[in-house]
Amino acid sequence: MARPYNFSAGPAAMPEAVLQIAASEMLDWHGSGMSVMEMSHRGKEFGAICTQAEAAFRTLLSIPEHFHILFMQGGGLAENAIVPMNLSRGTIADFVITGSWSAKSQKEAQRYCKANVAATNADAQHTRLPDPATWQLTQGASYVHVCSNETIHGVEFQELPDLAALGSDAPLAIDFSSHVASRPVDWRRVGLAFGGAQKNLGPAGLTIVVVRDDLLGRALEICPSAFNYKTVADNQSMFNTPPTWGIYVAGLTFQWLLQQTEDGRQGVEAMENRNIAKARLLYDFIDASDFYENRVAVDCRSRMNVPFFLRDERRNEAFLAGARNAGLLQLKGHKSVGGMRASIYNAMPMAGVQALVHYMREFERSHA
Amino acid sequence: MARPYNFSAGPAAMPEAVLQIAASEMLDWHGSGMSVMEMSHRGKEFGAICTQAEAAFRTLLSIPEHFHILFMQGGGLAENAIVPMNLSRGTIADFVITGSWSAKSQKEAQRYCKANVAATNADAQHTRLPDPATWQLTQGASYVHVCSNETIHGVEFQELPDLAALGSDAPLAIDFSSHVASRPVDWRRVGLAFGGAQKNLGPAGLTIVVVRDDLLGRALEICPSAFNYKTVADNQSMFNTPPTWGIYVAGLTFQWLLQQTEDGRQGVEAMENRNIAKARLLYDFIDASDFYENRVAVDCRSRMNVPFFLRDERRNEAFLAGARNAGLLQLKGHKSVGGMRASIYNAMPMAGVQALVHYMREFERSHA
Repeated sequence: MARPYNFSAGPAAMPEAVLQIAASEMLDWHGSGMSVMEMSHRGKEFGAICTQAEAAFRTLLSIPEHFHILFMQGGGLAENAIVPMNLSRGTIADFVITGSWSAKSQKEAQRYCKANVAATNADAQHTRLPDPATWQLTQGASYVHVCSNETIHGVEFQELPDLAALGSDAPLAIDFSSHVASRPVDWRRVGLAFGGAQKNLGPAGLTIVVVRDDLLGRALEICPSAFNYKTVADNQSMFNTPPTWGIYVAGLTFQWLLQQTEDGRQGVEAMENRNIAKARLLYDFIDASDFYENRVAVDCRSRMNVPFFLRDERRNEAFLAGARNAGLLQLKGHKSVGGMRASIYNAMPMAGVQALVHYMREFERSHA
Repeated sequence: MARPYNFSAGPAAMPEAVLQIAASEMLDWHGSGMSVMEMSHRGKEFGAICTQAEAAFRTLLSIPEHFHILFMQGGGLAENAIVPMNLSRGTIADFVITGSWSAKSQKEAQRYCKANVAATNADAQHTRLPDPATWQLTQGASYVHVCSNETIHGVEFQELPDLAALGSDAPLAIDFSSHVASRPVDWRRVGLAFGGAQKNLGPAGLTIVVVRDDLLGRALEICPSAFNYKTVADNQSMFNTPPTWGIYVAGLTFQWLLQQTEDGRQGVEAMENRNIAKARLLYDFIDASDFYENRVAVDCRSRMNVPFFLRDERRNEAFLAGARNAGLLQLKGHKSVGGMRASIYNAMPMAGVQALVHYMREFERSHA
């Protein structure tokens, strides 16, 4: 039987090929006689898995050599504390509020520094991005934080801000949890990027941090050693026992991503093409309909998370029940926004989006 | 082909039955059409998995209702910071140093409070436990920390200290990472227990904290929200996305443990009987030999981690190579102690210890 299509915002659908490898290697990884879960993180087998995963991620996202890749724990919410503990020096950091996630980041950072709101789209209910030209950046800020894709509100930076062009010499920190590896990253504009793996990369419990080398070594004294980027970097992500299974599955996903091709492109460029096409199909359908609506400004719409509404919300339950029957899972919107949300990450094939649009069209036809 | 026996100190061997279930359910958990890794942590499927895992752990260890069970991230090393951030109130905590792990805990706690060394066995090279009657406990200490089983030095408390009888009213915090669920816990003597899952319970990346309700709500302002025990408790371990796969596999392991029987006992009591028998077989063989030695005082020896030495250490490499050929993996001792270490956690069957003793006897015969 075909697997249903899973539109969960995270933890989210994974490539079936990755799940099949993980199942087949469960009792004996490559003749080692061990499951990956049973391996010492200091043994040569897991050492190879970890080294290959890191190298594949570097290749996949074209991460320059002067950035460290760290495999950590805690997810985006823990990073909301860990980033300011590592970068703020207890001084000032700037935050651009574009939705729930950047708002949470700013709130948590107040424990460790002055967390200045440089811009916000709250007055627009988080449906458009504030124009960088209007940001009130602080001279000498320790860093500037943006969430480059807001999972809940469905708002995405189509281009990362060029802080230098805005007159700031602060490093840019991006929370790229929900669109990492869905498109290339312009590392010239980034000082630090972090993300939980559970949307585009692998299972929950793995957090990936990419940090420019010159930003290591600034941690506050109260930063736990296990979350001090320099300590983690100096120990190749093995200061504490890393989430070994998560690294293994993410590594399989990186390999899968590197092998993807589309219109003569490969890896992340192929995924970007595919993600553009998937998002266009869904947004175009919604925009052409009087039955559904998406409220995000067109040029700020996320390719990954598509919140949408039935104009008559009394039909929500029937819509969700019918979707489940049609093999379309986890479409309910986040409670803070309501309505529906289709998360169409890398692992969601075009066929899944086509099936969703087909269902939405049929539902509209029978209920309009 | 039979799987080899894996004596890794952690991540460590897991019950084969658990691995088989995890493999078989990988692409479709109970007809849901999803892998557990693909489930929203807020959906009903994962909600059921998490609730059942927590209930099974409570049953397994007879945890009273006035304790919360928290599923967290970061492992024991992160808890070395998280515990004092939650319990110390920035005042004084007492530490009993019995090996590498308690020493690390004391060192890390200094970031957050005055971390008093109430006793230490460093002068005995961590081969015996300091008599509780000699501990220099601080009146009014916020808590007293012990590592109830030292993974590296192979020293285990056979009975938890009774702080009240020692004249202290401080709560006892125990790091039980490496012997959790190998024996019952006397919760009357415990305020907080924490452990990484990767030795006796499941995969790395899951941390379990058991905390008495009256100890919630004491966190320092600089404690990250994701690691504030009260916040985690108030959100049923779902304040941040929990390590869902780890909780699932640990839940399978709890079920496996509950089903174990031995001499008419069940669950943890059965495991304790089995662990006593396994440890006795190995220690008795070592003690009767002039070729091998264990340096830990007999009444402090760990049932879980058995460090031992070849009296002629020039034979170490040959011993390890022969062991690998005999299907006995990961016996090399920790670099800080040297020699060998056999970790014989719950998932190690008696047959594995018998195979090790058989190999050790044969090696001695051919090399003595």
